Amino acid sequence: MPVISPSRRVRRTPFSDGVEAAGVKGYTVYNRMLLPTVFESVEADYRHLKDHVQVWDVACERQVELRGPDAGRLVQMLTPRDLRGMETGRCFYVPIVDETGGMLNDPVAVKLEEDRWWISIADSDLLLWVKGVAYGYRLDVLVDEPDVSPLAVQGPQADALMARVFGDAVGKVKFFRFGRFDFQGRSLVIARSGYSKQGGFEIYVEGSDIGMPLWNALMEAGSDLQVRAGCPNLIERIEGGLLSYGNDMTDDNTPHECGLGRFCDTQAAIGCIGRDALLRVAKEGPVQQVRAIEITGDPVPRCDRVWPVTSKGERVGQVTSAAHSPDFGTNVAIGMVRMTHWDAGTQVQVQTPEGPRDATVRDGFWA
Amino acid sequence: MPVISPSRRVRRTPFSDGVEAAGVKGYTVYNRMLLPTVFESVEADYRHLKDHVQVWDVACERQVELRGPDAGRLVQMLTPRDLRGMETGRCFYVPIVDETGGMLNDPVAVKLEEDRWWISIADSDLLLWVKGVAYGYRLDVLVDEPDVSPLAVQGPQADALMARVFGDAVGKVKFFRFGRFDFQGRSLVIARSGYSKQGGFEIYVEGSDIGMPLWNALMEAGSDLQVRAGCPNLIERIEGGLLSYGNDMTDDNTPHECGLGRFCDTQAAIGCIGRDALLRVAKEGPVQQVRAIEITGDPVPRCDRVWPVTSKGERVGQVTSAAHSPDFGTNVAIGMVRMTHWDAGTQVQVQTPEGPRDATVRDGFWA
Repeated sequence: MPVISPSRRVRRTPFSDGVEAAGVKGYTVYNRMLLPTVFESVEADYRHLKDHVQVWDVACERQVELRGPDAGRLVQMLTPRDLRGMETGRCFYVPIVDETGGMLNDPVAVKLEEDRWWISIADSDLLLWVKGVAYGYRLDVLVDEPDVSPLAVQGPQADALMARVFGDAVGKVKFFRFGRFDFQGRSLVIARSGYSKQGGFEIYVEGSDIGMPLWNALMEAGSDLQVRAGCPNLIERIEGGLLSYGNDMTDDNTPHECGLGRFCDTQAAIGCIGRDALLRVAKEGPVQQVRAIEITGDPVPRCDRVWPVTSKGERVGQVTSAAHSPDFGTNVAIGMVRMTHWDAGTQVQVQTPEGPRDATVRDGFWA
Repeated sequence: MPVISPSRRVRRTPFSDGVEAAGVKGYTVYNRMLLPTVFESVEADYRHLKDHVQVWDVACERQVELRGPDAGRLVQMLTPRDLRGMETGRCFYVPIVDETGGMLNDPVAVKLEEDRWWISIADSDLLLWVKGVAYGYRLDVLVDEPDVSPLAVQGPQADALMARVFGDAVGKVKFFRFGRFDFQGRSLVIARSGYSKQGGFEIYVEGSDIGMPLWNALMEAGSDLQVRAGCPNLIERIEGGLLSYGNDMTDDNTPHECGLGRFCDTQAAIGCIGRDALLRVAKEGPVQQVRAIEITGDPVPRCDRVWPVTSKGERVGQVTSAAHSPDFGTNVAIGMVRMTHWDAGTQVQVQTPEGPRDATVRDGFWA
């Protein structure tokens, strides 16, 4: 397997020294930044994540910060989700679409104050879209990327570990809400969130200089909890139906196709870019949608390109993420399937690079 | 060295099958797409590039296509370079800046027709900036990423190889101009350009389906020319002073800091975003600027982060690209140096991860 070549352009993170010391074996690049993909093995990392607690360098979830009188107006322009009732201290998962309703990103919006937001982004330079729109509309808002690097703590022992470093109060933070907690004299935003189904937190580490001190503090505090460096796990996230922007959806897809219609209040989201297009889609419904797909046979190879989904030789969809699940004893996959074949139980074929496989469309994800 | 993990999100190119068959050993990710970095070794690839001819998968130079009545107006909004006199058939290197004059990209603009342009981008999602601005200004223009993947042919034997596949007329294409040439019934844009100082062409391969047929045709036609798969070469591009967006400049830098002032006609570029900021910079001059820097001692390690440049213990700049040059027998580097120390011959120190090195600011690049 080819190595990844170092350069300044593929940015290191405030936690890279810790990641390297932990023996990272694989990387991907996410928002032009290093994102670890494997430490021991994807399977061993998966087992450990489900049984213990891991610290993840997800600094690549860069923040787009909006500050100023028009910050609230701008963030509502970006998403069809109705943000009017959103209070300070909340985190909302927000589909972000262009004027045609195509997904540009699927970030988490963090409302810090009435006129100050962070948008914690998936893999696209959303900063440039937001800056372009703000400039074109001459909005009174500052848009930039602050020195904020998320560090995730995930797994069944996440609450125990976090309490040791931040105190018991951190355990009272509810899902998709945040509080501010002290670390070495800094007040850090900590949300109960994360890209796994095992529970845990995301610490918005403000100031690169405290990255490694915090990393080390978590590792030391959790040694008897078997804490380890980890990373978003391919198998676990597919089991849980956590979509990946760029893998399972692109700007070709509407939120409705991605199964994110429940996050769209398009009628209410006055001023939202793409509103006309999405009202049309909401009315007619999508013709294809994300589905869980079970693929029979031996463990599948890594899905590094679209695998066509066919029925009687005709293309009816595509698989975009797949892995063998030890816990469910089958190949778990995420795909986009046309409405003619999206009902649970429909038998299809998946054209992998190693040949066709029989597969079944499911009514939901595994975990 | 950690491997790069495969996923659909890190896109393969129309030439990836050829790249893999040629034994690629290293990749980077550029515009969310695979870009090869090494085949035999960086040094061996360098030698071969300078002596023979290589075919490069630079599909990651994605195109932003502008089409429609406002295409010309929009492209002029994007850059301080005056495009009024630019004729169809020309390619212009254009700094692209935000409203503060910060570099967002340093692409090549290709004028296909009066109302149709390609912007062949460096590593940032310029598409989102252009779409955002076009939307904000309600311009009458279509902005998207077409199925166009550049394939570069670089090296002293580039003319010979290209003539065999496209006919002798391709040799008449002048520097930074393009013509249309036939391959298997398709009319392809071919420019005399490329990210090396060895001469050659960039073929804008329109239609992924002819990617491998063209790759194979070039390899077969050039077997006696010792043609090989290659890629932008770190050593050669530093010797030649070819800057890399994300490495040697970011959105923190103005074009003037990057030594790109000669591409700015800011006074004349009416309507250009960032004009006010750049007029100010043009008047006062930058306080730091890109320089060639020669670093003494053993071959330097790979520059995967900023290396501070100091003088008497005080920071006066940074190195962002560096490599040992076999031909010049020294370490060649690109950095940004403050005006107090940017004169040729100034002695400085470079703080590499392996310790400080003596270095000299030069009056120009090596090749």
